[in-house]
Amino acid sequence: MMMMMMTMTTVIFQDCSNGRPEGSGQGDLEEGVESFKAKDLIITPATTFKEKPDPKGLVFGAEFTDHMLIVEWCADSGWGKPQIQPFQNLSLHPASSALHYAVQLFEGLKAFRGVDNKIRLFRPHLNMDRMFRSAVRSTLPPSLGVKKPKKALLFVILSPVGPYFSSGTFNPVSLWTNPKYVRAWEGGTGDYKIGGNYGPSLWAQCEAAENQCQQVLWLYGKDQQITEVGTMNLFLYWINEDGEEELATPPLDGIILPGVTRKSILELTRDWGEFKVSERYLTMAELENALEEKRVKEMFGSGTACIVCPVANIVYKGQVLHIPTMENGPKLTSRIFTKLNDIQYGREESDWTVELP
Amino acid sequence: MMMMMMTMTTVIFQDCSNGRPEGSGQGDLEEGVESFKAKDLIITPATTFKEKPDPKGLVFGAEFTDHMLIVEWCADSGWGKPQIQPFQNLSLHPASSALHYAVQLFEGLKAFRGVDNKIRLFRPHLNMDRMFRSAVRSTLPPSLGVKKPKKALLFVILSPVGPYFSSGTFNPVSLWTNPKYVRAWEGGTGDYKIGGNYGPSLWAQCEAAENQCQQVLWLYGKDQQITEVGTMNLFLYWINEDGEEELATPPLDGIILPGVTRKSILELTRDWGEFKVSERYLTMAELENALEEKRVKEMFGSGTACIVCPVANIVYKGQVLHIPTMENGPKLTSRIFTKLNDIQYGREESDWTVELP
Repeated sequence: MMMMMMTMTTVIFQDCSNGRPEGSGQGDLEEGVESFKAKDLIITPATTFKEKPDPKGLVFGAEFTDHMLIVEWCADSGWGKPQIQPFQNLSLHPASSALHYAVQLFEGLKAFRGVDNKIRLFRPHLNMDRMFRSAVRSTLPPSLGVKKPKKALLFVILSPVGPYFSSGTFNPVSLWTNPKYVRAWEGGTGDYKIGGNYGPSLWAQCEAAENQCQQVLWLYGKDQQITEVGTMNLFLYWINEDGEEELATPPLDGIILPGVTRKSILELTRDWGEFKVSERYLTMAELENALEEKRVKEMFGSGTACIVCPVANIVYKGQVLHIPTMENGPKLTSRIFTKLNDIQYGREESDWTVELP
Repeated sequence: MMMMMMTMTTVIFQDCSNGRPEGSGQGDLEEGVESFKAKDLIITPATTFKEKPDPKGLVFGAEFTDHMLIVEWCADSGWGKPQIQPFQNLSLHPASSALHYAVQLFEGLKAFRGVDNKIRLFRPHLNMDRMFRSAVRSTLPPSLGVKKPKKALLFVILSPVGPYFSSGTFNPVSLWTNPKYVRAWEGGTGDYKIGGNYGPSLWAQCEAAENQCQQVLWLYGKDQQITEVGTMNLFLYWINEDGEEELATPPLDGIILPGVTRKSILELTRDWGEFKVSERYLTMAELENALEEKRVKEMFGSGTACIVCPVANIVYKGQVLHIPTMENGPKLTSRIFTKLNDIQYGREESDWTVELP
């Protein structure tokens, strides 16, 4: 598997050559303004190559390929030509607003080498749609138009990654809650993939680790709504308060990241039509109630990195709430994992994957 | 005047030489862990120099000096030696979490060349205190200890700046409100000087500019509390609802940046003892009421860049609320400006300034 990280960031005071030959005339500019094109790709191959890592020992996001893609953008001349170049450090002006004011966004998606040796991307247009939204919100250059920054750099780096869970063996996680920390709020940017949502979460993440939890479960509001895990969306599979079998995840009301895996799970399970599938609010009180009444079947996170990740415990108000996900199979979690895995690795035909030539 | 911008940011995969000679032994490490010392400063002078800018045409933050300060930090070996080096681009790994997750903080303060030709800093310890708080919250290395990041870079750059207002002539600003956008929230990071608070505000700032306003006035909550201006704290000088002459600014309840100028104005005016000075909530309804009843004297922003900045209009719900700040002198705004200016330029003795040797 290859994790692709796409990042757009402002740069300032950089020479904005835009990959064009020096002295190229105004004629080029019109085309550059609107977008960049694959046909204009300039490839500069690396001359030295890193040692290939052992696929068994891959750590998520720690190793990178020998090449990277960059595209420069200038307010004056628009997008430059896309360039694949040797993987290298970025040279940034120290006053760059990316470093001071977090004017940046990012996206991550995976490429899968399938059972047929073909390489597939999983619903990349959804990532592109979200990247476009993030760019608009961050005033970075989407193809539409221009807001504040004068120069920007789009870059794509690739990191080979191993499977998050080896086949069939899930490692369930424990989640830490502390209502003192709030990840996102109405009127803010919690539903965009931008750095400012992530850096400030590290502090609570450290507190989680000190309390033997792997992730933070972010709560919201006086009624302590369950929102998301920061790196994952969250699903509850239960018998709801009306006695219905339900798969539920919080709605996209502005404080939840619209995950590609989240959307895929909703579409998949709605298509199955076997139980109620809801985007609805879930409070900690409702969860506690359901646990007492043994109405909880499974809880799992969803994200590009893990696909799905079972939740075994939530530490809440100093108490460990045990979620019987693993005791229940995890039947639904495993079924979703297998289904998405089969699509991503080409064991199952699907219009959700895009085959690379 | 010289604007100093101090920024700390994570870097990864950088060679962490820490400014120590290669092969220096473990003996050095103990000292490095806790802090860095001025006596260890390594100076590498620039060999080429930029043309000195015309002091009259200086744009805020657009020109930089020929040197910069950097200090590297590693989880393993602590702080390296501080180095003054030629001003240069930073070389950052493209996967640096500063660029993806906004793991960074910044501070800005000014150095003033006084009437006696001495150079003074204005209350720099307050900036250092705030920087320490931001570092703790961002899991960046303060001298105390270590959280998440493995490597970090502290750098200081300097930008010569002209006076914001030429003597005696204020340019009042118009503020734009849109309750749709919320700058900060309880449980978030609005009271820290970190990039994630700033990048996401650009979008609303662009909307303000499109509506002929210079700044955004951020509102909070159902009762539309007046909070701050993003780049400035906000003060209202009025006859309050109880008929008292009052200078009021919102309290530091977690969503307001604790400004050094804000604190100084509170201390100064409390010391004068001439009117009530309050840290209190102010809602748009209260302001509208007071405007109708002609109880508003002046409104101004406060910040390191402008010191104080009079407010002439607030665009609220599509209506222009005119604030009679300029019509009233602006008496208090001018008096505060002159007082702080006299201290900063050494016309008045004060323990608020730190003379540089």
